[in-house]
Amino acid sequence: MLHSLPSWNDGVARQSIIDFVAAVTSEGAPSFVLPSDRIAVFDNDGTLWAEKPIYYQFQFAIDRVREVADEHPEWKTKQPFKAALEGDYDTLARIGETAAITLMAPTHVGKTTDEFIQTVAAWLAKARHPRFDRPYTDLVYQPMLELIRLLRAHSFKIYIVSGCGAEFMRIWSNRVYGIPPEHVIGSTVATRFEIRHGLPVLVRERKIDFLDVGGGKPVGIDKFIGRRPIFAFGNSDSDHPMLQWTAAGSGPRLMGLVHHTDGNREWAYDRGSGVDHLDEALGDARDKGWTLVDMKRDWNRVFSFEE
Amino acid sequence: MLHSLPSWNDGVARQSIIDFVAAVTSEGAPSFVLPSDRIAVFDNDGTLWAEKPIYYQFQFAIDRVREVADEHPEWKTKQPFKAALEGDYDTLARIGETAAITLMAPTHVGKTTDEFIQTVAAWLAKARHPRFDRPYTDLVYQPMLELIRLLRAHSFKIYIVSGCGAEFMRIWSNRVYGIPPEHVIGSTVATRFEIRHGLPVLVRERKIDFLDVGGGKPVGIDKFIGRRPIFAFGNSDSDHPMLQWTAAGSGPRLMGLVHHTDGNREWAYDRGSGVDHLDEALGDARDKGWTLVDMKRDWNRVFSFEE
Repeated sequence: MLHSLPSWNDGVARQSIIDFVAAVTSEGAPSFVLPSDRIAVFDNDGTLWAEKPIYYQFQFAIDRVREVADEHPEWKTKQPFKAALEGDYDTLARIGETAAITLMAPTHVGKTTDEFIQTVAAWLAKARHPRFDRPYTDLVYQPMLELIRLLRAHSFKIYIVSGCGAEFMRIWSNRVYGIPPEHVIGSTVATRFEIRHGLPVLVRERKIDFLDVGGGKPVGIDKFIGRRPIFAFGNSDSDHPMLQWTAAGSGPRLMGLVHHTDGNREWAYDRGSGVDHLDEALGDARDKGWTLVDMKRDWNRVFSFEE
Repeated sequence: MLHSLPSWNDGVARQSIIDFVAAVTSEGAPSFVLPSDRIAVFDNDGTLWAEKPIYYQFQFAIDRVREVADEHPEWKTKQPFKAALEGDYDTLARIGETAAITLMAPTHVGKTTDEFIQTVAAWLAKARHPRFDRPYTDLVYQPMLELIRLLRAHSFKIYIVSGCGAEFMRIWSNRVYGIPPEHVIGSTVATRFEIRHGLPVLVRERKIDFLDVGGGKPVGIDKFIGRRPIFAFGNSDSDHPMLQWTAAGSGPRLMGLVHHTDGNREWAYDRGSGVDHLDEALGDARDKGWTLVDMKRDWNRVFSFEE
């Protein structure tokens, strides 16, 4: 098979992927799926790239709050801004998946979408991951890049379905994953159309439009794609509804979970208290024969920058 | 040029389309646009198919209200239900583009998305257009089908951006236009994920999630596609913001308006009071050299069922 996942070790996980792709692409077989129906969805944080020490849009939001804090003295006593200014990650973790969006909303209210994109691009260009001292976009998993390439070579339509902001991801998703903006589903803030200085712009408002987490993931899939995926990959309980939704369709399908088991090359965690909590979905994966990727056992390489 | 628009008469409108497609696909020319950036958006009602005597999702909503009226005695005195039951189209027209969604919301609250799709499919199979005595999906414009084919043959990604419900259109858009569900942007009601009788479902709620009309159209384009189109076609002032948004990008672009000028083969209207009102966008089209399609003059065939 083309692109046969060189960074994956031989084992149940790798084989289940190869068998699935072979099954749905075998013309004439009862398991054959038309290319138009080959919809694959991937969570992003912890599934396609790392999410430690805190997920990277969250770090962007914190950096951004700090940058403009002088203009907002009221933040010194108001959560979650107080925690962001103090570097109190425990409190921020308790606020959960909405924290980044909550922090970003007021720092970008009234700004146009173009201005927001420029701010993110400027941050990405200079921010460095504290452990690896590299741009955050280097923190993508090499085995998952290979999986995306394998699916693309077999005519899958590949979507990101992430709790992160869609705009935040669209800036680099095409360059890093080859996934274009129109295939990136994420959380969104409300925007409104207006004519500003004679030019039409979209202005960010102080209102969350859509939270693409938990049960919001199948909602987002239905809203944006309008078809049920046959392939879904996640790494936390926030992805569980998306995996259940994918599993409930008819015909061949693959549900996968990345299990963070490698404290040396990456991080080892599952039943934490934050956005990375993995428990129920792990139970379902074991009970129902979903594809469980043990990062330590199944991947011979985690990041592409490793030798 | 491939697929050269046989149902279009020679003239400025047809020529502007052919010139535009030639310009953006000429490799090496300064006007060349990468296939990935060839995003085309079309309004639906009055642009791709007819919208008279009332737009067809609206008729569906009215028929549906009548079907279940016995269970809702309160509708006899409550607008817009009263108007729907009495066939008072003037009142319904005044309510405007949201009327169909407003009527549909309570008739489908608590139903799953699958149940809703079945109801629409059953209606489509038996409903007939009152003037032409044909299924509503026959009321698509042959010249616009040819335009879609021309763009597709030149690697455009073609999206519908319509005030109608996305779910309503996705049921037939692929069969009728070759536009798959994931390229249909429309208004949506809120849904929630739940496990019902042991199976994951999406349940329709009594809440509009997104109105894809007027300024909502560029908002929807940015939210769903995340790129600015280079080609946009509409037929009413509700499409004006989408055309302005498309026009404001850099590089070659085409903005088009279908002007309903043929009272014999179709209908003649523009400055009405309803969802079909066309005034400001028509002014811009004339002032700025947008492509103005005079249905009577520019199309030698309107519907494919005509001899």
